[in-house]
Amino acid sequence: MKISMAPRPTEEQIQEVRRKLLSAGYSVHRMDREGETLLCALGPADFPEEAIRRLPGVTEITKITKSFKLASRQFCASDTHVAVGDVVVGGREVILMAGPCAVEGEDQVNRIAEGVAQAGAKVMRGGAFKPRSSPYSFQGLGVEGLKILRKAADTFGLKVVSEVMDISHLEPACRYVDILQVGARNVQNFTLLNALSLLDKPVLLKRGPATTIEELLNSAEYIMAGGNYKVILCERGIRTFNTYTRNTLDLSAVPVLKELTHLPVIIDPSHAVGIRKMVAPMARASIAAGADGLILEVHHDPDSALCDGQQSLTLDQFRVLTVECARIALVLGRTLGPEGGLDTKKAGP
Amino acid sequence: MKISMAPRPTEEQIQEVRRKLLSAGYSVHRMDREGETLLCALGPADFPEEAIRRLPGVTEITKITKSFKLASRQFCASDTHVAVGDVVVGGREVILMAGPCAVEGEDQVNRIAEGVAQAGAKVMRGGAFKPRSSPYSFQGLGVEGLKILRKAADTFGLKVVSEVMDISHLEPACRYVDILQVGARNVQNFTLLNALSLLDKPVLLKRGPATTIEELLNSAEYIMAGGNYKVILCERGIRTFNTYTRNTLDLSAVPVLKELTHLPVIIDPSHAVGIRKMVAPMARASIAAGADGLILEVHHDPDSALCDGQQSLTLDQFRVLTVECARIALVLGRTLGPEGGLDTKKAGP
Amino acid sequence: MKISMAPRPTEEQIQEVRRKLLSAGYSVHRMDREGETLLCALGPADFPEEAIRRLPGVTEITKITKSFKLASRQFCASDTHVAVGDVVVGGREVILMAGPCAVEGEDQVNRIAEGVAQAGAKVMRGGAFKPRSSPYSFQGLGVEGLKILRKAADTFGLKVVSEVMDISHLEPACRYVDILQVGARNVQNFTLLNALSLLDKPVLLKRGPATTIEELLNSAEYIMAGGNYKVILCERGIRTFNTYTRNTLDLSAVPVLKELTHLPVIIDPSHAVGIRKMVAPMARASIAAGADGLILEVHHDPDSALCDGQQSLTLDQFRVLTVECARIALVLGRTLGPEGGLDTKKAGP
Amino acid sequence: MKISMAPRPTEEQIQEVRRKLLSAGYSVHRMDREGETLLCALGPADFPEEAIRRLPGVTEITKITKSFKLASRQFCASDTHVAVGDVVVGGREVILMAGPCAVEGEDQVNRIAEGVAQAGAKVMRGGAFKPRSSPYSFQGLGVEGLKILRKAADTFGLKVVSEVMDISHLEPACRYVDILQVGARNVQNFTLLNALSLLDKPVLLKRGPATTIEELLNSAEYIMAGGNYKVILCERGIRTFNTYTRNTLDLSAVPVLKELTHLPVIIDPSHAVGIRKMVAPMARASIAAGADGLILEVHHDPDSALCDGQQSLTLDQFRVLTVECARIALVLGRTLGPEGGLDTKKAGP
Repeated sequence: MKISMAPRPTEEQIQEVRRKLLSAGYSVHRMDREGETLLCALGPADFPEEAIRRLPGVTEITKITKSFKLASRQFCASDTHVAVGDVVVGGREVILMAGPCAVEGEDQVNRIAEGVAQAGAKVMRGGAFKPRSSPYSFQGLGVEGLKILRKAADTFGLKVVSEVMDISHLEPACRYVDILQVGARNVQNFTLLNALSLLDKPVLLKRGPATTIEELLNSAEYIMAGGNYKVILCERGIRTFNTYTRNTLDLSAVPVLKELTHLPVIIDPSHAVGIRKMVAPMARASIAAGADGLILEVHHDPDSALCDGQQSLTLDQFRVLTVECARIALVLGRTLGPEGGLDTKKAGP
Repeated sequence: MKISMAPRPTEEQIQEVRRKLLSAGYSVHRMDREGETLLCALGPADFPEEAIRRLPGVTEITKITKSFKLASRQFCASDTHVAVGDVVVGGREVILMAGPCAVEGEDQVNRIAEGVAQAGAKVMRGGAFKPRSSPYSFQGLGVEGLKILRKAADTFGLKVVSEVMDISHLEPACRYVDILQVGARNVQNFTLLNALSLLDKPVLLKRGPATTIEELLNSAEYIMAGGNYKVILCERGIRTFNTYTRNTLDLSAVPVLKELTHLPVIIDPSHAVGIRKMVAPMARASIAAGADGLILEVHHDPDSALCDGQQSLTLDQFRVLTVECARIALVLGRTLGPEGGLDTKKAGP
Repeated sequence: MKISMAPRPTEEQIQEVRRKLLSAGYSVHRMDREGETLLCALGPADFPEEAIRRLPGVTEITKITKSFKLASRQFCASDTHVAVGDVVVGGREVILMAGPCAVEGEDQVNRIAEGVAQAGAKVMRGGAFKPRSSPYSFQGLGVEGLKILRKAADTFGLKVVSEVMDISHLEPACRYVDILQVGARNVQNFTLLNALSLLDKPVLLKRGPATTIEELLNSAEYIMAGGNYKVILCERGIRTFNTYTRNTLDLSAVPVLKELTHLPVIIDPSHAVGIRKMVAPMARASIAAGADGLILEVHHDPDSALCDGQQSLTLDQFRVLTVECARIALVLGRTLGPEGGLDTKKAGP
Repeated sequence: MKISMAPRPTEEQIQEVRRKLLSAGYSVHRMDREGETLLCALGPADFPEEAIRRLPGVTEITKITKSFKLASRQFCASDTHVAVGDVVVGGREVILMAGPCAVEGEDQVNRIAEGVAQAGAKVMRGGAFKPRSSPYSFQGLGVEGLKILRKAADTFGLKVVSEVMDISHLEPACRYVDILQVGARNVQNFTLLNALSLLDKPVLLKRGPATTIEELLNSAEYIMAGGNYKVILCERGIRTFNTYTRNTLDLSAVPVLKELTHLPVIIDPSHAVGIRKMVAPMARASIAAGADGLILEVHHDPDSALCDGQQSLTLDQFRVLTVECARIALVLGRTLGPEGGLDTKKAGP
């Protein structure tokens, strides 16, 4: 149930509603948006609608009909801005996250961090804990990798996003990482999602290759139900009969998710297509479709990468792509890149 | 086999190669591109490579390894421009084709034609022969519909694209239509493709919901093998587990096809997503991905359309979309819209 | 609308209902089943329910809610038996159709016909008109192939099923063939379906690789709407992300179709899996799932077949499979094979 | 690398090979099969082939080319029998596992256990830890549920299979459960697989809705790489464009897996189709396709089940199905049911 309050309610009014709901056996979630306070009550079916409606400051009580509640537009009409320090995902600025598939060593990470930061990325990506289909593939540098990422990111003014596969990864990841990534294979690892719901850290939740839109939003709901509302959704390709590309990028997920949820939506074109020269067209298309950001694999020397080199952009390709994406962002009234986006005077062809 | 000739070969040289190949039992295809002449020999496995290589003007003989030959980039490296009068599909200009799902009457078609022409469309779409899943659904106005389309298009300076389902449709369609559309359900109707291969009319070939990229190019090859090289490919969504959208737009088909073939590639976002408010984001994304054009359902009164109204744009929505698409086209160094595209001075935000 | 008549109505009663419906603008379909007469009226929305209900012999008027009407169980509760001479598809006996992918010559067809007839097949399959993805693949022997099939089938007491791709194939096919097959690529070739609806010949309608159950039944409805009720449905694999098998056999289509329609359902495991050693397990499973028959590729020398040899059973494999299938059929209370099925006394292991 | 030893090698010979391999940096896996000893060395690429080949008792060294090694038929040609007390999965007997989706209480579990045991099931299934798409759905009784299962199973002579979602579930599950199930959502939860690899407990590994055959076998490899070779594979439906059934049962996975691996393969038709009346046909088909067993949802009162009642068989339906399956098993030379399978004398119709 969504409980709408009059504009700028007093804290006392809010607390009274909260107390009433708690005492009736409901858990209460609260989001504050530009002078508006949204309350969501989750619990028993026979909601005491009359009693709550009579409380001072309450203007309306609405049933949220979707299976996901806190994640739904029905609950919260305005877009969520997930702040990572001074970087905001989901606002007017389109955010680029870039870096290698896997952290291989300090030199590699530094060179890539410098390159992507100069080109306009705001967040450094890189895998330290690597989920691999085969037990015999390279499994990542672990905590050592996280430290390398942190140091390089700090040097070049970047935030860090990195994958956690497991509850045991949360403690070190919280120390070194700004955004905790849940990989496609763990999108319904409910134990992990429950643990993340108790943290005060942004979570980047990747859709799995056969996850429906509703399942993805229910997985986001797991994280939000525990009180962590800082969820960023990410489409990275679904499994279809297509064999030419690694997966099939479902770009229509962007407008569909924007309709159903207030959470930010970013795209990972690298994993979706799996072929270097197909990444840039799909990255541009993602911005044009309305994505709030991109997460891209970039490597200073893709041909010698330990993992997924064939789908990594070179630093030069990334620089060109950034300029194109910035110009497309402008068409949609958004910005991207250094100093709050490309200077509009340079936006002509 | 691809036979490459020296730059600007004499017609006599070309004819001698042709004669030799024909007498050895091969069919010979010829494309002329900016001073370059490409010859393709199709036939028996034991190609007389030595004898042909020795002919004057022949510089190189290359095996085309793909299953499709004439459609492949291996045969022809430069992009094919399909000219429809003064409208060129596959060149620098991005072409918009727009109109109703089905022709319903003269007034409807005129109002839509006027609107889409003003907004920048170059081609009018509209179904006169309608393939419908159920025998009890509206099956189109037939030849009467084609006449209505032609008249409206002529009034507003548009070309006409319309679907043919059958050999019996070809004669009237050739009289009234500029581009013959093969629908998704007929992408492997080889009888129809063979008949189209003998015409001198551009063909818009739609990918089916489960057609692989290679199958689509082999269907194009059917049309080209008979001598009709004017084929425009169209992606319109594939079938996946997604249920929120009507189909799943496989936008990565654009860069994949651009890699494999020299034929133009356009996108039909209306059928792909099937929901009005998702069409514009996917249309913009298509341009950003490098599509050569769009085919869109537009209706002056979508809610009373006889067919697919829920996925048709209003004329107002189409006008806004056209401007956005024109600006994105500029980012890619292309043009779109009235008078060869948006004036670049107005391209800022 | 389904109009139910009292048991054993007089012909006059039936004709009066028919006349009333025709004069009200409806087309009227009639099926006679063991003393029961079913009438279906198709036409305008405002059905004259009251007037018809009052006619002598009419007991009930029921709305058929599915998009397919004549094909639905709602219209006809009892199973349709499609008789092909003395062979009945859809009855207690499970029918095997077997033969080569393509007719290659008289000797080949004779050897295979003899083998499959001895093993228990009742129908000979073989392609004379071959739809091929590439224009450069073997396209079949055409009418000559049909004659070869007919002769071999007559020699060994078999019926013939063969594919038609086109209206121009219907005339010769009707002369030489007992069951006209519509291939997966033509499942929504409505021109072809309409032409078949006017014939008095059984039609084997194959589901396409991305055809939904509802679309398949609507395609059957196209054939039935013209008055040809002898439709046999065939599942032959759908397209999924699986790459190990050629397609993914959707065996649950058998119970699903049995629920929705009274038409017989057979399975083509050869095209579904595309690998010889996977065919027999899937054939056995099809019988166990309740299929009314199988259509199988069998070749006396698969390794030298011109088409699809890798998925053809040898004659020896077919003989073993027939015995296994006959035993499984017995478990379901059905028969299969020579003289109305395996002797039940030999059915133990 | 597979190291083959002469028949009945001495323990000393085996140990010497093992020592050599360990000292060269390899991990060594050993399986003993009817007098044959199989050794598998996993580790660095430059295998000391010459040195090992010279050791006494070594007859052949073969490279295992698949990405999965211990799970491959290349490593072990004969079928693995997973023994659960006196119940053997993967042998001549087809094993039925049956029970409710979720454990709801003692009475429910007892009634179902009694019914399925009488009908011929050997293993009781039931969820105590329930992975649910929505955080607001019933999540299971936890350890209490495991105790209820254990007690009921012991009373009626059954083994127990139940799902673990998490490392924290392993300790209680090992105490009360005979086979640990990994659900479809956790098929690539590598942390969980690694933990299971260190246990001496059979694992039932379910394929996910978009898991390829190779990925499934690599997930099995994770469990085997740690030394736990008791893995049972389970197909439970994949995601396709079909909407009529919950998932699409990929029954061809049975012959495909039997070709690639020596591990037992069972089928879960209940989750695959999701509709009660479709379960029995698919269960019969599974046996006919060669499955080693079934895991089925059975409930004494499906309409009041807390979870998945619409796909649960009644006890009566389960009894009928068991008899049919036993008869089909006999056709394949296998047994099923009470006292080592149906009495063959009663197998006639």
